[in-house]
Amino acid sequence: MAAMPPSGQMATIAPSLAWLGWAMGTSDATVVGRRGKVGLAERVAGIEPFQVVRIFERARELEAEGRHVVHFEVGESDFPSAPPIIKAGASSLEAGHTGYTEGLGLPALREALAARYGELGIGADRVAVTTGASGALNVLAQVLVDPGAEVLGTDPGYPCNRVFIEAAGGTLRALNVDARTSFQPTAAMIAEAWRPNTAGVLLGSPANPSGSILAPEELAAICHVVRGRGFVIVDEIYQGLVYDDAPHESALAVDDGLFVVNSFSKYFGMTGWRLGWLVAPAWAMDGIDRTAQNLYLAPPTVSQHAGLAALGTAAEAVHEERREVFRQRRDQLLDGLDALGLPAAHRPQGAFYVYVGIAQTGMDSGEFCRRLLEEHGVAVTPGTDFGRYRADDHVRFSFTVDESQIGLGLERLEAALRHWR
Amino acid sequence: MAAMPPSGQMATIAPSLAWLGWAMGTSDATVVGRRGKVGLAERVAGIEPFQVVRIFERARELEAEGRHVVHFEVGESDFPSAPPIIKAGASSLEAGHTGYTEGLGLPALREALAARYGELGIGADRVAVTTGASGALNVLAQVLVDPGAEVLGTDPGYPCNRVFIEAAGGTLRALNVDARTSFQPTAAMIAEAWRPNTAGVLLGSPANPSGSILAPEELAAICHVVRGRGFVIVDEIYQGLVYDDAPHESALAVDDGLFVVNSFSKYFGMTGWRLGWLVAPAWAMDGIDRTAQNLYLAPPTVSQHAGLAALGTAAEAVHEERREVFRQRRDQLLDGLDALGLPAAHRPQGAFYVYVGIAQTGMDSGEFCRRLLEEHGVAVTPGTDFGRYRADDHVRFSFTVDESQIGLGLERLEAALRHWR
Repeated sequence: MAAMPPSGQMATIAPSLAWLGWAMGTSDATVVGRRGKVGLAERVAGIEPFQVVRIFERARELEAEGRHVVHFEVGESDFPSAPPIIKAGASSLEAGHTGYTEGLGLPALREALAARYGELGIGADRVAVTTGASGALNVLAQVLVDPGAEVLGTDPGYPCNRVFIEAAGGTLRALNVDARTSFQPTAAMIAEAWRPNTAGVLLGSPANPSGSILAPEELAAICHVVRGRGFVIVDEIYQGLVYDDAPHESALAVDDGLFVVNSFSKYFGMTGWRLGWLVAPAWAMDGIDRTAQNLYLAPPTVSQHAGLAALGTAAEAVHEERREVFRQRRDQLLDGLDALGLPAAHRPQGAFYVYVGIAQTGMDSGEFCRRLLEEHGVAVTPGTDFGRYRADDHVRFSFTVDESQIGLGLERLEAALRHWR
Repeated sequence: MAAMPPSGQMATIAPSLAWLGWAMGTSDATVVGRRGKVGLAERVAGIEPFQVVRIFERARELEAEGRHVVHFEVGESDFPSAPPIIKAGASSLEAGHTGYTEGLGLPALREALAARYGELGIGADRVAVTTGASGALNVLAQVLVDPGAEVLGTDPGYPCNRVFIEAAGGTLRALNVDARTSFQPTAAMIAEAWRPNTAGVLLGSPANPSGSILAPEELAAICHVVRGRGFVIVDEIYQGLVYDDAPHESALAVDDGLFVVNSFSKYFGMTGWRLGWLVAPAWAMDGIDRTAQNLYLAPPTVSQHAGLAALGTAAEAVHEERREVFRQRRDQLLDGLDALGLPAAHRPQGAFYVYVGIAQTGMDSGEFCRRLLEEHGVAVTPGTDFGRYRADDHVRFSFTVDESQIGLGLERLEAALRHWR
């Protein structure tokens, strides 16, 4: 093999970290190698790298140089999976459960997930275990979106949604949302945006990056608009990770005919296991089964055994404790940002993010993120990772670090704002 | 939730097992629920369920009724993952490695995989760890295939290939192969089949279902035909699982510019972990990185830590022992089938399958499989799972059961042939 400098692995593997390369809004996506007719498919040029990855990697570089960085950029809980989950995963391995499961997941896990919907009466035959929520979104896009079709989704929103839709040959049409509608679309917006080739709507609640929750009555109105004309998918991957008295019932309580995507990554703290699920109307399950079987064969077996434990009472006690920790962190961060004159664009009722307007600093989000990290050792994610609409005016803070780091981050932010004034 | 009879889980969840439903060649794929405009995307109607799943499930039903079944249908090693792999997976969990890794995989695993290519000098920056070979095939289809493009692949071949290509909006154009060319395409066939919208070629070596290996000189000729006009992907997921003096060097030894797909599922016995990898030319890696990041985020973390151990010498000793067991089973099965007048259509040099012509029984493969299972308790897979070309005339035997089961299966097959004569 080619000689690899032992200390240079990251340099060999990581994408170029030159700041030059991450001027926000530009992308190296159009620079693709082509040799004659051979080259990348056209869709690839439209897939932007996550800025958050570059920021994270740059933060790691600074740390390697001896600098301390506060990590407000990471969209992943800082807690490892709860001990009962780890134990169940390790036990399943030691018991030799290393082969494939059924394509839609272990029957016992499907039953346990169905049971979580309680009196909604979701049958296990309507639940598919997937390879992360990513797997659920990909399968649903393939099953529901024809080439040329349009899907309505929010800007800002989860950046990969567009890529799943485009992979199926469709287009994600942005509904621009902001604080005026709590960063959620309204039924009127959807009715107005609907066109002959619109196939459906993809919503998120709690939403990334705002942490906002779609009000059940608005969802009901949206379902009324869409009924008979297309599909409604609700991404509920932050379900359970809600604060105050926010509603945390599934969207299925509003309309039994919609599609729900969920995940073990957030509330259950199982990102690295790549385990999620979806709930679909009965008429779609056969197509979902065949598609998932072909594209994934089955979700990871060890993760499914661990997922069973994640739904148990021992793990739930841990997750509820952590939810309280996240609530305290949220309050600390919200109060601190308020005091600095950088209030949340929306008070998050769920997830672990605060979306913050930074226009008053006179910088765009790219420059703000770069200087905050380079000059003050605080990493946050630019709004450009979540779309285009007012993306230059916003950044996202994750409260996935502990109280002392949040305090330190706020102190550094205060110094930065004073310095830049 | 809806009441679930505790003993009726499989009945609730499994697809209908009525024999009526699996008359070969027909599919329930066209029976999709539609409610007004709402329904499944058109591509879904073209995705056929795996017959092998139905056969497996019917075999399980028979076993539940007290019948004994010999399982020649399963395309998965009967050995659990080797002890060093299980230990490494469990240890990584206990160490709390439950978060995401880098999108293209742990740097150490990429380095270790690159090192396996030895003097070919593949840099770790050209290796991407994927969520099974499925993940590699999906990402490559998305990265290399534009809507409307055609990819050349063999019939018979791995059934999911077509679905990955179609998910990207392309078409898999079948090259019919049989014993005359050792179930592999020739350079002349590819040159003749090439059309203006042909984007590339997808090969498999060792191939499913024939176990045939593409001769390096033929691959070189194929690369010569394709060079400058499109891509060559070689699926090497059975690499290492080869017998006799079959070549087992990677196709990269023939042409450094092609794409290779590989997996921890077969030689390394890690199906349920969902771990694979790909090797690509440097110019494609940035597009692969962005695409994989968006569609998968990252491969399962526990599986990657286990995969590192799978590449170590302790695991290799186990895998080499098992390879010898598979060789002995192959010889036993080949000799037995020969003696019954059902010789292999091609003597497999790799993988764990024997593809067998059954036209002389006067039955098509669907009827053959059905009657062999129902009347004689032997499960095999019909050729229709691997394409259309002479698919009714062939079935696949897997030697993923032990010597005594192979012996019993051959005895039952002999009785069946005598009975049907």
